[in-house]
Amino acid sequence: MKAISIKKPGGSEQLEIQERPVPSLEEGELLIKVQASAINRTDTLTRENKQLSEPYPILGVEVAGIVVDSNLADEKIAIGTRIAGLVNHGGYAEYVAMPADRVFHMPDTMSFEEAAAIPEVFLTAYQTLYWLGKLKQGETVLIHAGASGVGTAAIQLAKKMTKANVIVTAGSEEKLEFCKELGADKGINYKKEDFAKEVLDYTQNKGVDLILDFIGASYWDQNVASIKTDGRWILIGTLGGAIVEKVNLGVFLQKRIAIQGTLLTPRSDQYKAELTNEFVKKVMPYFENNSIKPIIDTTFSFGDVTSAHLYMEENKNTGKIILSIQE
Amino acid sequence: MKAISIKKPGGSEQLEIQERPVPSLEEGELLIKVQASAINRTDTLTRENKQLSEPYPILGVEVAGIVVDSNLADEKIAIGTRIAGLVNHGGYAEYVAMPADRVFHMPDTMSFEEAAAIPEVFLTAYQTLYWLGKLKQGETVLIHAGASGVGTAAIQLAKKMTKANVIVTAGSEEKLEFCKELGADKGINYKKEDFAKEVLDYTQNKGVDLILDFIGASYWDQNVASIKTDGRWILIGTLGGAIVEKVNLGVFLQKRIAIQGTLLTPRSDQYKAELTNEFVKKVMPYFENNSIKPIIDTTFSFGDVTSAHLYMEENKNTGKIILSIQE
Repeated sequence: MKAISIKKPGGSEQLEIQERPVPSLEEGELLIKVQASAINRTDTLTRENKQLSEPYPILGVEVAGIVVDSNLADEKIAIGTRIAGLVNHGGYAEYVAMPADRVFHMPDTMSFEEAAAIPEVFLTAYQTLYWLGKLKQGETVLIHAGASGVGTAAIQLAKKMTKANVIVTAGSEEKLEFCKELGADKGINYKKEDFAKEVLDYTQNKGVDLILDFIGASYWDQNVASIKTDGRWILIGTLGGAIVEKVNLGVFLQKRIAIQGTLLTPRSDQYKAELTNEFVKKVMPYFENNSIKPIIDTTFSFGDVTSAHLYMEENKNTGKIILSIQE
Repeated sequence: MKAISIKKPGGSEQLEIQERPVPSLEEGELLIKVQASAINRTDTLTRENKQLSEPYPILGVEVAGIVVDSNLADEKIAIGTRIAGLVNHGGYAEYVAMPADRVFHMPDTMSFEEAAAIPEVFLTAYQTLYWLGKLKQGETVLIHAGASGVGTAAIQLAKKMTKANVIVTAGSEEKLEFCKELGADKGINYKKEDFAKEVLDYTQNKGVDLILDFIGASYWDQNVASIKTDGRWILIGTLGGAIVEKVNLGVFLQKRIAIQGTLLTPRSDQYKAELTNEFVKKVMPYFENNSIKPIIDTTFSFGDVTSAHLYMEENKNTGKIILSIQE
């Protein structure tokens, strides 16, 4: 089968289509004929990872496709079923093996591109808002990179599921306008405004209950200023740098701030299965009635994966970048 | 009545006995004839707080004594009852007003000095281990300042209530020996050993599930190295400095570390009442059958409060420093 891996760790020019064997199935797995995958930051980090040795992995952590074979004790998922979900790696390929306990069934009206836009960002947004962030009805949440894949997912979940008061940051008026269309209550252009000042003005100096932070170091002091006493702060990326020059722990005591780092991809199979199962129960009904939507920026063809990676690295996207597998 | 406040914010030489009115009672409060109070770090911080203006507060956040008056809708607590608990301030005094919903009744065989050694440190230890730290049966916890008031309380709770594997740090062999008598499984002399190395050796490189950290900046990197993936880290003091240079957020993502700052004294009346009520139900039975004990280092007389503060500031104590009020 055709699959996308790397010549060696490095930039997007290292990506290439290679011939690989169709995966064999372990017990409990499905073989998926992949129709669409999607680009994630974790893929660009894997692409650059100098620790990797040959054979290099097939990139890609999520797919939508059709079940073509299975190795299950009981036949709960029929051949031909349209499904989507997280894979541990190997999503940029014609076929992938996936544990059956972490698929979700696609609504009939949903396209494969739309379905591939859901798993990673919506599961991350759900996990960080609810499992880790404990977002409650009517609380205020600050979502950085509001127009990103996880950002556009988190805005919709926070509004539809918990009627939260949603503040977002983004780098252009266009992106902010899109976030507002998705339900954001307040948009802040971080290139033009001090977001902490804007957050405090908007919340009458109370600050926010929860921060979803993809940025890290460059936003540190402003996040500390923006958070409420007893606020929760979930760190899910370090796009603005990983090294904070000076952290004042005194404020962490006084404001009783709780900060937690997380990544979804390295978590256990069991964790991903439990998260997917809860997500299917609680969130899929919103997709079925169209009140929450997968947000796709652009779909790239399989052969154009280099452009897709460059597009993500230039932060051009609003929502997901999809990789179409079957041409 | 006699009470201890300050001439002006500053060192222990500013402490003085002053004449103050007996407190009047708000609804829901008890008037306590104080028999014993105890010294806490929060008292020395209040003593030094340059933000304070006159009249300066009476110091002290915990007492044991006898109910001599009450202003309750229903008479649930009789005059003459021996009680102990947290007060918002005013514990170093002959009388103090205390909300009735946060008292605990003293076992018959317990002295006032012993009872005054319980509220602040055991409630803090209980809150940080269980409410915030979510310590589960058989997990491993690293307790810094193991011989301190909160440390000696936390060792006992973690061993008796959750059969935890308890690692402590302290600055002398004597203190470590005492921690082991209380149940600690492993003691590390931080003056002689790299505690992260010792923790990793002892846990076969797994690290600990939970850290109770009173120290802050000077232990930062060693704590990061000592904590397990998905570990919890509760910050309850900054005795080793509040400013951490160059914090690497990358490790927080990879190890999915959750760090939370907390202080008990500034929390709401309702929080203190709920915490005390759960503590009474879950922990007081252990005091009644003597399997958990209040740990007293020294009892100072009311007139000798300056020596008591100096003694705490020199970290000489193993367990609590008590202030006897009735002479």
